[in-house]
Amino acid sequence: MVLKGNALFAQSGGPTAVINSSISGAIQEAAKHNEITAMYGSINGILGVLNENMIDLNKESKRNIELLRVTPSSALGSSRHKLKNEEDFEKLLKVLQAHDIRYFFVAGGNDSMDTANKVHKLAVSKKYELRVMGLPKTVDNDLAVTDHCPGYGSVSRWLAMAVRDAGLDTEAIYTSDTIKVIETMGRNAGWITASTALAKQKENDAPHIILLPEIPFNQDKFLSALDKIYKKLGYAVITCCEGLKDEKGEYLTSSKRSIDTDKFGHKQLGGVGETLVSIIAENLKIKARCDKPGTIQRVSGMAQSKVDQEEAFISGAMAVKHGIEGKSGLMVTLVRDSENPYKCSTGVSDLDNIANKERKVPAEFISADGMYVTEKFLKYATPLIGGPLPEYARLEKNFIPKKLK
Amino acid sequence: MVLKGNALFAQSGGPTAVINSSISGAIQEAAKHNEITAMYGSINGILGVLNENMIDLNKESKRNIELLRVTPSSALGSSRHKLKNEEDFEKLLKVLQAHDIRYFFVAGGNDSMDTANKVHKLAVSKKYELRVMGLPKTVDNDLAVTDHCPGYGSVSRWLAMAVRDAGLDTEAIYTSDTIKVIETMGRNAGWITASTALAKQKENDAPHIILLPEIPFNQDKFLSALDKIYKKLGYAVITCCEGLKDEKGEYLTSSKRSIDTDKFGHKQLGGVGETLVSIIAENLKIKARCDKPGTIQRVSGMAQSKVDQEEAFISGAMAVKHGIEGKSGLMVTLVRDSENPYKCSTGVSDLDNIANKERKVPAEFISADGMYVTEKFLKYATPLIGGPLPEYARLEKNFIPKKLK
Repeated sequence: MVLKGNALFAQSGGPTAVINSSISGAIQEAAKHNEITAMYGSINGILGVLNENMIDLNKESKRNIELLRVTPSSALGSSRHKLKNEEDFEKLLKVLQAHDIRYFFVAGGNDSMDTANKVHKLAVSKKYELRVMGLPKTVDNDLAVTDHCPGYGSVSRWLAMAVRDAGLDTEAIYTSDTIKVIETMGRNAGWITASTALAKQKENDAPHIILLPEIPFNQDKFLSALDKIYKKLGYAVITCCEGLKDEKGEYLTSSKRSIDTDKFGHKQLGGVGETLVSIIAENLKIKARCDKPGTIQRVSGMAQSKVDQEEAFISGAMAVKHGIEGKSGLMVTLVRDSENPYKCSTGVSDLDNIANKERKVPAEFISADGMYVTEKFLKYATPLIGGPLPEYARLEKNFIPKKLK
Repeated sequence: MVLKGNALFAQSGGPTAVINSSISGAIQEAAKHNEITAMYGSINGILGVLNENMIDLNKESKRNIELLRVTPSSALGSSRHKLKNEEDFEKLLKVLQAHDIRYFFVAGGNDSMDTANKVHKLAVSKKYELRVMGLPKTVDNDLAVTDHCPGYGSVSRWLAMAVRDAGLDTEAIYTSDTIKVIETMGRNAGWITASTALAKQKENDAPHIILLPEIPFNQDKFLSALDKIYKKLGYAVITCCEGLKDEKGEYLTSSKRSIDTDKFGHKQLGGVGETLVSIIAENLKIKARCDKPGTIQRVSGMAQSKVDQEEAFISGAMAVKHGIEGKSGLMVTLVRDSENPYKCSTGVSDLDNIANKERKVPAEFISADGMYVTEKFLKYATPLIGGPLPEYARLEKNFIPKKLK
């Protein structure tokens, strides 16, 4: 079972706050094994293999590799390239063979796991001994099998903090800016949007309404729920998913430009927040503002979750261990062993179970009215953000008696 | 000169990451002076006085008052209320008299300083002994006289981090998402947008183009500059101010809804980023994405600048000291005593010099082509963000020789 050769590391799909931590874990683990001769980094995911653009990771300083743990984005560069035809695959195999690459570690989401799976199957069919292991990565948290995905804990912490702060802002200045809409990422799965619930620490805190793509948007129900909150508090904060769909299953807003459709056929979304602002203005005659943090939420190192960073690191290291042990065509998964205290270990799953599959927010995590999350979701998500949010002052506000009529 | 009575504290205008620190400094200073009997907080700025909605700050715990230093938003609530008529002013004076308020401390921007100034003048004309002191506050950094404004250092730190991270994201995945537009706040003054330059640590880092409202937007020049950067790097990050104007002086984009105009006649801006995305798609046939962090940037505690927090605290304390000494109708200013090492003390300025005035980014801080900032600006802004950004890994990227043709 001993397979000697070089190892190749690649990062794929949207960068996150911890995908570098995964790669750091993988590189540091690989450095311990004699089976692995040289360590290469593929520049811009699978494109680096196709174009033979690879760097020598042994020449990077130890300090740099360790610093990757806290460095957001994808240090090796990323891509969303889809392998097209026979030619692509032939070229790929030639490059792997030419550089005696026997271990291929790919950090990515479901599209990337599909690519990894195809490379694995190609090697098997061509009888080229290659061990392909997937490292889970996606803020979308929509990979099948795994309890959660590295990247999700950090985007959740970021949004919990941002929505708490933006909520305090709305609460403070509700005399003029009364309604805030915060548009989050997330295509068909509402995990990211759901995590904004972690901002709420007391009953009337933001967010007040959470709109997930799992629940078709119903304008009347939305306006009626908003009106009720608004009449009670005088202000409201709504978080919505960029992938929100109407009752016909159409995206509430999506770009009409063909340039905005990527190679996997995914349309560039966005604009849902502004659409809601218009709906609110037209129907309730109330001014709303929209914040759309976009890619900043996905990648920012400002609120990296410690738990997320460590799990990313370990999942990278485990991918290498499994590869050394002779496994291929698998992705490392995160397994929740206990809820309280939160404990997590790793497992593996066949890439066939992961590739191109999408795990949505289950019904048990969505409130009965479809516009908030359940306690069960909060239990699921809370440990992932790596500890409580920073403590803030909350004035008791003892009003003094009025003296005038 | 000894004036005994109660003190009233108010927060006004858009909340920031450090306006609570200013109030914390003022309250903690006021607690030291026997001249001040009770300490009240006005709820929602001047509205709290008009409506007699005031809280007893002596009943708040010391810990809570201290925690205000690191708590974003406006803990007392804020407003953008404009005092309208004689009736408003009469009511105001009656409330102050009824509660024996002799010290009035207002933290806010230029609109709020106008209100403070009017209250000061009213008291003088009505011979009601009252000491009104302004505490500078605004992320916009557009107050006259003061070197900079509490709030600006923190929004600058937040944006420096966010734009650095978003820049690394674009650099990593430039094979599909090649151009990023980040829309920042700022109405007529581009200070906030300019601060995004603090994200750049090496020559090719983001941002690559900075569009300030001080420079009329010229589409041809913009596209030509962008095209050049894009051809060199393969990607580009643009930061733009929501208040960007065309050569006729019209906002490039602003809401058409009358509901979006506030009581000072300011229109709700926003949409410039998406407008640029369209311009880029139509003319260069390149897909761009827009991030619009909105109020999150203004208020977030995620990247509070230590320097900003301390200066906010001290300016609050100094406002009280000046009030106790008998001054009124002044705002505390920040005075830069030395550049290297950075040293800052406080001064005062007559509210007449501040009220309703707007300080724009001066020509010496804007590059010759009008699409970036100068070294001089960087020297000005760097100390305000309270230390270097967190260290990140940067791979050396030693490419291995290609073996295939």
